[in-house]
Amino acid sequence: MELTLQAPLDMHLHLRDTEMLENIAQASTHTFSGAIVMPNLVPPVSSKEEVIAYKERIMDSIGNENFIPYMTLFFKPDYDRVFLETIREKITAIKLYPAGITTNSEGGVSGFDVEELRPALEAMSDLNIPLCVHGETNGFVMDREAEFVSIYEKLAAAFPKLKIIMEHITTKESVAALDRFENLYATITIHHLLITLDDVAGGMLQPHLFCKPIAKRPEDKEALLKVALAAHPKVMFGSDSAPHPRHAKENCGCAAGVFTAPIALQLLVELFEKHHALDNLQAFVSDNAQQIYGVTPLNKTVTLEKKPFKVPTDYNGVVPMYAGEEIAYSIKEAK
Amino acid sequence: MELTLQAPLDMHLHLRDTEMLENIAQASTHTFSGAIVMPNLVPPVSSKEEVIAYKERIMDSIGNENFIPYMTLFFKPDYDRVFLETIREKITAIKLYPAGITTNSEGGVSGFDVEELRPALEAMSDLNIPLCVHGETNGFVMDREAEFVSIYEKLAAAFPKLKIIMEHITTKESVAALDRFENLYATITIHHLLITLDDVAGGMLQPHLFCKPIAKRPEDKEALLKVALAAHPKVMFGSDSAPHPRHAKENCGCAAGVFTAPIALQLLVELFEKHHALDNLQAFVSDNAQQIYGVTPLNKTVTLEKKPFKVPTDYNGVVPMYAGEEIAYSIKEAK
Repeated sequence: MELTLQAPLDMHLHLRDTEMLENIAQASTHTFSGAIVMPNLVPPVSSKEEVIAYKERIMDSIGNENFIPYMTLFFKPDYDRVFLETIREKITAIKLYPAGITTNSEGGVSGFDVEELRPALEAMSDLNIPLCVHGETNGFVMDREAEFVSIYEKLAAAFPKLKIIMEHITTKESVAALDRFENLYATITIHHLLITLDDVAGGMLQPHLFCKPIAKRPEDKEALLKVALAAHPKVMFGSDSAPHPRHAKENCGCAAGVFTAPIALQLLVELFEKHHALDNLQAFVSDNAQQIYGVTPLNKTVTLEKKPFKVPTDYNGVVPMYAGEEIAYSIKEAK
Repeated sequence: MELTLQAPLDMHLHLRDTEMLENIAQASTHTFSGAIVMPNLVPPVSSKEEVIAYKERIMDSIGNENFIPYMTLFFKPDYDRVFLETIREKITAIKLYPAGITTNSEGGVSGFDVEELRPALEAMSDLNIPLCVHGETNGFVMDREAEFVSIYEKLAAAFPKLKIIMEHITTKESVAALDRFENLYATITIHHLLITLDDVAGGMLQPHLFCKPIAKRPEDKEALLKVALAAHPKVMFGSDSAPHPRHAKENCGCAAGVFTAPIALQLLVELFEKHHALDNLQAFVSDNAQQIYGVTPLNKTVTLEKKPFKVPTDYNGVVPMYAGEEIAYSIKEAK
């Protein structure tokens, strides 16, 4: 069996910088037409110059023009309208991190006071800049995302024209919020469609499946699957593929992040086929995102075939999900 | 401040065998008068000869007579009355593992059919041999223990004279079951009184805090604290101290178990002091167990003092809880 996808998009991707960027850029982008690139570098990407320079480093590392990195800025409450107007054409979205919630998020937002955020978020709303949010509180690890839903709803109500993307959602509570506010959208990863906390910590502890937000309960996975397989028009694929060097994963105190980009499409085809939902895959991996973000991607086509693929044990030192295991689909061509 | 405990007992201890036994036996038993020793070796301890020989290896590894290993047998449904009568004086309890639920439990029980278990459990009941149980189903990792409570209750009702010890309980559901059946008892570890899943996977992933049953939710920890600090007469301290070599913990796919025995009493004193419950510690770490098991321990006394103790980074290659960190209490004397 073969399947061709038009302009697949990864609406949440970590490409990192310097040596790591060079190590994983090609493998992370090869099968995608474009990706929303996260800004949580050290220091975070927060000026026009940094956006431009980071985009150049990304294109240099990829080594070809057949991919669009949709650039983002690291949200700061003091961004004003003048600044945002000058940077508008260089970015596709702005990413908000609660302070300290994940890798390199120390400079994020500590409170969610609507009036404090109003100048920046109203300007973004007027300029039609989507707000991408890592939605977790500092609460108990299994409750963090569900607790954040009330903050999503507060922001959605206060800024009804602002597109708010709930990033890498993992819970039934986030899924339910999608339909309560017109301006709430979501990305979903492939790993959260495949695993629960059982896969991370139910047998041996699996550092390469440890991520933030952590994989949740079976009923949460079911809720995610339901909207992903139906290609609910407000959800999009975003891998949250997040490379760390092997030593930072297999150690005493392992970093959060699952590296999936090189095998994400293959896994998605297998998953959608299993659930008899292949007709919806094109929308989930591209069309919905084009609608939501209003982007027109490069005309890249990616053909997959049902032929076993042995996942490499690592990509330049970064261990992917299912390292060394066989998956059912291979990339035949990406052009 | 100083505090002296009379005959502290660890009612759930893993001493392993061969090289590991030699590496950790002294450190694991030094501050205790005795301990219930788990039988999950490879192969499991399941004959009189194996019990006697394992006890000898333990005593050889400890190198002194100032400790009693209370021996256990690995439960098998085909144990009959004749066999149990011949082994009665050599063992203190029999430990039941659901098949495949934790380290070296492959030969455990697969179903919990009361009639199938009746011959063995009625004989144990008549011979007053307590049944220690690792109470987890094969369900979702956060639900396994709560799901097992109905099995505890089924067994408790079917064998009302059989003492059933719910080992290393971690949930409010198990705590609640304690008072519903006269013949249900429980051990509680020090780590489950101190940590939740947040400490294991809320920040970086912490392999040295990964154990089975996994640490649960804050409200579960509170329920455990309540009965432990009150020295509820049906609960006893049992460390479930479970050594693994460093490479089996800090690796891709880490083994379950927290190594706590050498610092357990120090942590317990600190915890009970913090909660103004020091008056109940003697009951929690010894008196309750003596009552429940009907054992008369060696007259060992252990004196602790409020003096910082830097936990070693490892004990012969086994990394303890709080490795390299400072804790508030030290052992002054154990004799």
